[in-house]
Amino acid sequence: MRVVVFCGGVGAARLLDGIVRVVDDPTEVTAICNVSDDLQWHGLHISPDIDTVIYSLAHREGKFGWGLEGDTNVALEELRLLSGDEWFTVGDGDLATHIWRSEQLRSGATLSEVTTALATARGIKARLIPVTNDKHPTIVITENGELMFQDYFVRRHAEDSVIGFRFPGAESAQPAPGVVEAIDGADLLVIAPSNPFVSIDPLLAISSVRNAVLKSAVPCVAISPIIGGKAVKGPAADMLRSLGHETSALGVARIYNNLIDTFVIDKIDAQLTAEIERLGIDAIVLDTMMRDHKGRTRLASELLAVAIP
Amino acid sequence: MRVVVFCGGVGAARLLDGIVRVVDDPTEVTAICNVSDDLQWHGLHISPDIDTVIYSLAHREGKFGWGLEGDTNVALEELRLLSGDEWFTVGDGDLATHIWRSEQLRSGATLSEVTTALATARGIKARLIPVTNDKHPTIVITENGELMFQDYFVRRHAEDSVIGFRFPGAESAQPAPGVVEAIDGADLLVIAPSNPFVSIDPLLAISSVRNAVLKSAVPCVAISPIIGGKAVKGPAADMLRSLGHETSALGVARIYNNLIDTFVIDKIDAQLTAEIERLGIDAIVLDTMMRDHKGRTRLASELLAVAIP
Repeated sequence: MRVVVFCGGVGAARLLDGIVRVVDDPTEVTAICNVSDDLQWHGLHISPDIDTVIYSLAHREGKFGWGLEGDTNVALEELRLLSGDEWFTVGDGDLATHIWRSEQLRSGATLSEVTTALATARGIKARLIPVTNDKHPTIVITENGELMFQDYFVRRHAEDSVIGFRFPGAESAQPAPGVVEAIDGADLLVIAPSNPFVSIDPLLAISSVRNAVLKSAVPCVAISPIIGGKAVKGPAADMLRSLGHETSALGVARIYNNLIDTFVIDKIDAQLTAEIERLGIDAIVLDTMMRDHKGRTRLASELLAVAIP
Repeated sequence: MRVVVFCGGVGAARLLDGIVRVVDDPTEVTAICNVSDDLQWHGLHISPDIDTVIYSLAHREGKFGWGLEGDTNVALEELRLLSGDEWFTVGDGDLATHIWRSEQLRSGATLSEVTTALATARGIKARLIPVTNDKHPTIVITENGELMFQDYFVRRHAEDSVIGFRFPGAESAQPAPGVVEAIDGADLLVIAPSNPFVSIDPLLAISSVRNAVLKSAVPCVAISPIIGGKAVKGPAADMLRSLGHETSALGVARIYNNLIDTFVIDKIDAQLTAEIERLGIDAIVLDTMMRDHKGRTRLASELLAVAIP
């Protein structure tokens, strides 16, 4: 079964890890990865979402879901001494990924090629593709002006009230090789429990990606990143609120309306089922919290069972 | 007293540290640093000799004289996983230096500017200048062909028999700003106990640097890197032998003939005094082993006392 998963960071990485563990052939799983929160850091190219996915699939993710497990900060402490303002945290082991990626990119490799090589080096069988090899940043429009995503998210701790987003690269960005082909050839499309605005929307902001999803005849299932009115991780709930959406799984379902066939919500949100179904979307109630590896495989196997009965 | 020290790596760094500790005004000490063993490593610019000098003057050098004290290798281990062949060792803290330097160079700063900034950030008062901001590599000619210096030194463990050297950048390389001016304005020129072939010769291979030294009227003192027929560190003794020189302080004195006024040899080489003086060079016998910080300051103060009576 060929599964395509649209991925942001931590939530997507956990679900993907579950999917890869329960399918017969992990090489048939394709992750289309968000690159709109990529950044240049001291001249190094960092792809936070891709790295989170890679480290999780390699079972080496840090305890908060990102970075490498048990990583140290020796280089970062030294950089603080040299450059002063260090608001981004990069561990020593993690640094190797960025150094190696930057070297390859500078030598002319594409982000796709580097991503494949990084995943292969870590023994990952699933196919990971950045949605595009082109520049495609997320600009966060806040009450205090426009900010680059990591500026908003890390440097300013996601404290600015968000009033919108811009994807200035979306029109010219081409899907990376294999992205549209993977969607066209899929048996199932999955929208991971990621932030709809800054993880999933940037993927769909590239028109040929969005069109491939819209014209696909196979089931498209999303998992709510909002449980009990709160985001499991990150600023999704605050964004829903400040952008005038309902701060609930229902609010997310409305955003994904016309795109998905099925919406998976958590058991504590079961009361939203009727309202979601009124949108013409099948609502499925599952235990969507992935507290540990068991939780990932449980959600993944239940998801695949309901998605393709 | 304005002292200019011609520097290689570990031996130079130790002597410089001693000099800086005993002079009244460390800002009057200028180190002219070798850059001919610089290398590109995963897209990062590494200046091993400059870093050794900086870490030593900041009292943070590793126990073998190079790198940062107590540094870890987390990034390196991860890089091994990604890229396989890792023959160069870079610690995590050390990596910060290379990342920061490379970022600044890519932004258009010169190596001089970056070196000043790195030294200042670490509280160093002496002036450190790379001999040139231009490309000026050492090519080691061995019985097994030509090798870049770090290829010869680190990757192949200095095991190839050396038959000569080439400095292909020497003719076009310009001295970095301040190098010639520092030599012209010095009260004392010191050739550190560094490898004459791959540390000192590359400095003097730039003709305007060599000419400034030759025309200087102030004392020029060298300290022998060879003690009892052995190099304190590195391949200097093997090079002397394979290049047909006498493997002793006398062999080094002959190389520096016409350049220096005074040659400082170790007490265990006292018997070479007469032969060195026959070259027209004053030979001074001191305890030149710098086993600890005390040894550095002792040698530095004795050196300054004899050099400028």
